[in-house]
Amino acid sequence: MAKGMIISFEGTDGSGKTTQIKALSRYLEEKGYMPAILREPGGTRIGEEIRSILLNSDNTEMASLTEMLLYASSRAQMMEEKVEPLLKEGKIVILDRFFDSSLAYQAYGRDLNFDAVLSINLAAVKNIVPKITFFIDITPEQSLKRRQNATATDRLENEDMSFHYKVYEGYKKLLEKFPERIIRIDGTKEAREITNEITSYVDNVLKEDIR
Amino acid sequence: MAKGMIISFEGTDGSGKTTQIKALSRYLEEKGYMPAILREPGGTRIGEEIRSILLNSDNTEMASLTEMLLYASSRAQMMEEKVEPLLKEGKIVILDRFFDSSLAYQAYGRDLNFDAVLSINLAAVKNIVPKITFFIDITPEQSLKRRQNATATDRLENEDMSFHYKVYEGYKKLLEKFPERIIRIDGTKEAREITNEITSYVDNVLKEDIR
Repeated sequence: MAKGMIISFEGTDGSGKTTQIKALSRYLEEKGYMPAILREPGGTRIGEEIRSILLNSDNTEMASLTEMLLYASSRAQMMEEKVEPLLKEGKIVILDRFFDSSLAYQAYGRDLNFDAVLSINLAAVKNIVPKITFFIDITPEQSLKRRQNATATDRLENEDMSFHYKVYEGYKKLLEKFPERIIRIDGTKEAREITNEITSYVDNVLKEDIR
Repeated sequence: MAKGMIISFEGTDGSGKTTQIKALSRYLEEKGYMPAILREPGGTRIGEEIRSILLNSDNTEMASLTEMLLYASSRAQMMEEKVEPLLKEGKIVILDRFFDSSLAYQAYGRDLNFDAVLSINLAAVKNIVPKITFFIDITPEQSLKRRQNATATDRLENEDMSFHYKVYEGYKKLLEKFPERIIRIDGTKEAREITNEITSYVDNVLKEDIR
């Protein structure tokens, strides 16, 4: 029996992650897998309570370290309550953002110490790392353009462009740091073309896993 | 001008921490200092929101890692918002519990990895460590006896005695690990006698600080 594994998706808002996650999930279902899609806080009650603190626009005095640790707390809860049981059942768990988001947004975006953010997050997820991570690459300008029609805003979306640039450059650095795990996908291509690219990478991973 | 410093108090509930903290604060005021007393979450709005998640008796599914990270989040907020500005003003900050509580309750009490809990907490407090920490030592049995009249209970107080024993043994291990910083005080002595002991240690620290 195939072992469970995590496939995570990263990228700025508007990059098309959600569309691609759904397409990959359908593809895997057609191949006989029963993938689970989770997006932090992953439907845990405690995670939702933490999320409401994080997204509260009034909390402007939040320290960057507090923000980073709250994301790690919520992630730890999702792992133990949702992801670990699914992995034990042998499921493929597709995550819409995972700890790479904390590395990009909190370490690079907020100038927190990279090694500290990485080690805290690895502790939070008990060193369970994705088998493969897709970074869907669109620039902050493209992201802004695609989101221009969106109305709802939260504390993070209200950040100015210089923050989003730092996050974007952060993702580029993550590609260099973890070249074996993180795959860059050109997010400006046609959705169908992107899906083909992603599924062919996933096919290779699944083959390896059987070997 | 004297530099600011943290003096922290640790011990199980009922150990007499609060009484001794007030006595030390009065003593310092009489000597011309203006000490600040803080108890986590230290009056930060964000910390109070985090605290309400931690103390909610309904949150029985909370993962130990989540609990530990939530305490660290709240601590990070208190440090940046309250403690650091006080230290910059040269104040003595007396803390009713600090990160040693996470080492005792989360690492030893919940069997989390000690080094992970320590490094996460040091990151949360930006490596600002107390100048001196008083562990007021009473056994879990004595603690239970003293608290028998208390009525309000929260999620942590509802833990069974084996948990409180692990925490207590944890504090003993911390005394061995950090002998230069943590001072054991016999909590069964007369309150006045304990105060004299504590103030004489603090006097020595203040003298050192002037040298």
